[in-house]
Amino acid sequence: MSKRQINETFLKACRGEKTDYVPVWYMRQAGRSQPEYREIKQKYGLFEITHQPELCAYVTRLPVEQYNVDAAILYKDIMTPLPAIGVDVEIKSGIGPVIDNPIRTVQDVEKLGEITPEEDIPYVLDTIKLLTQEQLNVPLIGFAGAPFTLASYMIEGGPSRNYHKTKSFMYTEPKAWFALMDKLADMTIVYLKAQIKAGAKAIQIFDSWVGTLNVEDYKFYIKPVMSRIFSSLREEGVPMIMHGVGASHLANEWHDLPIDVVGLDWRLSIKEARERGITKAVQGNMDPSYLLSSWEVIEQHAKSIIDQGTQQPGYVFNLGHGVFPEVNPDTLKRLTQFIHDYSKSKATH
Amino acid sequence: MSKRQINETFLKACRGEKTDYVPVWYMRQAGRSQPEYREIKQKYGLFEITHQPELCAYVTRLPVEQYNVDAAILYKDIMTPLPAIGVDVEIKSGIGPVIDNPIRTVQDVEKLGEITPEEDIPYVLDTIKLLTQEQLNVPLIGFAGAPFTLASYMIEGGPSRNYHKTKSFMYTEPKAWFALMDKLADMTIVYLKAQIKAGAKAIQIFDSWVGTLNVEDYKFYIKPVMSRIFSSLREEGVPMIMHGVGASHLANEWHDLPIDVVGLDWRLSIKEARERGITKAVQGNMDPSYLLSSWEVIEQHAKSIIDQGTQQPGYVFNLGHGVFPEVNPDTLKRLTQFIHDYSKSKATH
Repeated sequence: MSKRQINETFLKACRGEKTDYVPVWYMRQAGRSQPEYREIKQKYGLFEITHQPELCAYVTRLPVEQYNVDAAILYKDIMTPLPAIGVDVEIKSGIGPVIDNPIRTVQDVEKLGEITPEEDIPYVLDTIKLLTQEQLNVPLIGFAGAPFTLASYMIEGGPSRNYHKTKSFMYTEPKAWFALMDKLADMTIVYLKAQIKAGAKAIQIFDSWVGTLNVEDYKFYIKPVMSRIFSSLREEGVPMIMHGVGASHLANEWHDLPIDVVGLDWRLSIKEARERGITKAVQGNMDPSYLLSSWEVIEQHAKSIIDQGTQQPGYVFNLGHGVFPEVNPDTLKRLTQFIHDYSKSKATH
Repeated sequence: MSKRQINETFLKACRGEKTDYVPVWYMRQAGRSQPEYREIKQKYGLFEITHQPELCAYVTRLPVEQYNVDAAILYKDIMTPLPAIGVDVEIKSGIGPVIDNPIRTVQDVEKLGEITPEEDIPYVLDTIKLLTQEQLNVPLIGFAGAPFTLASYMIEGGPSRNYHKTKSFMYTEPKAWFALMDKLADMTIVYLKAQIKAGAKAIQIFDSWVGTLNVEDYKFYIKPVMSRIFSSLREEGVPMIMHGVGASHLANEWHDLPIDVVGLDWRLSIKEARERGITKAVQGNMDPSYLLSSWEVIEQHAKSIIDQGTQQPGYVFNLGHGVFPEVNPDTLKRLTQFIHDYSKSKATH
C-alpha cells in the first residue's frame, strides 16, 4: 500500500466540518470538455471505456490533474449497472441512453434480475481500486442513478421531455411501480456498497429528472424508496450526496432523507435554501451556462455563491448540472483556483 | 351586433371576484388531442390553419363546445408574429419551431423590424373578430410568447434543453440582449393591443422556458422588460395572466409584475404559493400526466387542487402545461364537469 496523503477537504465539507477553503469538483468534469477525452472518444464508445480499467482510470484522473479539483468522480454512466439486471441499454451519440425493451407491464418488472457487482461489473470495481489504491490524492466519489431516473429511461425507452409514460405507469400501476422501485433500490444498494468496498470515499445519487414530480407525488411514490436506500448505506460511514436538476421544490424532502449533503441547482440559491430550513451541508450551485461567458461575469457570480455557501461550515462548490462540451478547460482550471483563493480569504467555512 | 350572453365566470375569477363555480380551461385545449383537429392537421400545417380565419375559428371553438370550458384561447403558435419582424420560422413536425437565421450578433438584433398587425397578421385579427362578435359564448384569451422564450428560439435556432446559447448571449452581450428584449417587447405590446382591440377579453403571456434562469438573473435581465409590457397593457383593462413551466422559483417575481393572475405549474402547490405570499388570483395546476391515469386518480387529485384553489376568491382551474396528443377528449369533458360540480358545492370561491 502506498503512503499517499489524501486531501480530505471535500469529505470534511460533506460532513459539515470547517475547512481551510471551499472544496470544488464539477459534475461531468471527466468528459466532453476535455480534448484528451474527445480523442479517446473517437476510438471508443462510453461502455468500451468503462470496461477498460486503465483507460477509465485515466479519464477519471484527467480533470483532477488538470483542474486541481478536490474530488474525483468515477467516469461511467448512470446506466452502467442496468444490463446486469436484464436491461439492454445503448448509449446513442447525440441522443443519450436508448432502451429497446421498455418496461410496460408488471411482468416486465418481475423479469428484472439482480446484480452481483464482482461478476457483472468487475471492471468498475477494478477501476476504483486502481484509482484509490494507487493513483489519486483526492477522494473518489462513487455514484448511481436513483430509481425514478433509471425507471424513466426504462419506461420511456430513452430520454424524455415530459415523462408522461413514466408518470402514467406510476399513477395507473402503483403495485408494479413500487415493485420496480424496490428492484432498482436493491440494485443501487448492492452496487454502491461494492463501490464503497472497492475504495469510493463518498457517494452521490443522481435523481436527475425527479424534479418533474410534484411534492405530494414525491412523498408518496419516491421518498420511501430513497429513504430505504440511504438507510441501508448509512452503515458504510461515507458521506452521501443527493442531486437532481430542476428539483428545488423537493429540496426539503431530500433534506429529510438520511443524507449528508443536499445538492442544489441554480434555481434555488444557497441563501434561500438556508432560509427554507436546509441546515445540512449543501453542494452547488453555479449554472454551467455561466462558463461560456466572460471571466468577469463568472468571477462575480462565483463570489456571490461562495459568499452564500460560506455562511456556515459544510459547503462544496459545484455546478448545478454537468459541464458541457463547449466549455474551455482553462476556464474550469481558473475557476477552481479562484474558488480556492477567494474562500481562503473568508472568515467562516 | 348579436345579443349573445357571455359567460363571465373566467373573467371574474381572474379579477379575484367571487364566482358560482371554478372556471376551467386547458392549455392547448385546441389541438392534437382532438380527432377533428388531427383530421384537419393531415391537410394543413399550423400556419396554414392560422391563415384561414373560418378554419382557425372552428379549431379554436371545438374544445369550448366539446369540453364546456369557460374560456377559449386563440389557436395559434407563440411564433406567429415573428415573421413580421423578419424572423423566418418553420414549425417542423416532431421538432417544433425551427429558425434558419438565428440571432448571433448585435447587428442581427438591429435588423429586426416592427409589426403592424393589421397588415402583417390580418388573419389573426379576423379570426378573433369572427369568434368574439359572432360565435363564442365565453371570453376569448389572446396570447403571446414572452421575450425570453421567443429569444430562446431565435438564438438557439429551435427548441433547446439547456438554453446555453441563449444564456451565453445574455451574459456576454448584455447591450444586444436588452436591445433584443426591447424589440420583442415592442412587438408583443402592439400585437396584444391589436388582439384586445379585435375582441380578446383577457391575455396570457407564455414565458414557457424562463424557469431555466435563476432568480437573480430573472430580476436583472427579464423582469424590467416584463414590467414594461404589462404596464403598457394595463390601460386596456383586461385581465392579464403570466405562465411558464418549471418556473415556481420565479412565482413571487411574477406576482410583483402588474398582472392579475399568476400561473402555476404543478411543482408549486397552490397552498404553498399562498404561504409564499402569492395573494393575487392563481391559475393551475394539474400535471397533464394525470390525464393518462384512471378516473379515480384524476378525481382525487382534482379535488385536492380545487380544495386549495377555493380557499380564497380568484382561482382558475387549468393544467400546468399543455394537453398532449394521447389524452382522451372524454377525460377532459368529464374533468370540466367534475370541476364545475365539485366547486359549486364548496363554500368560498
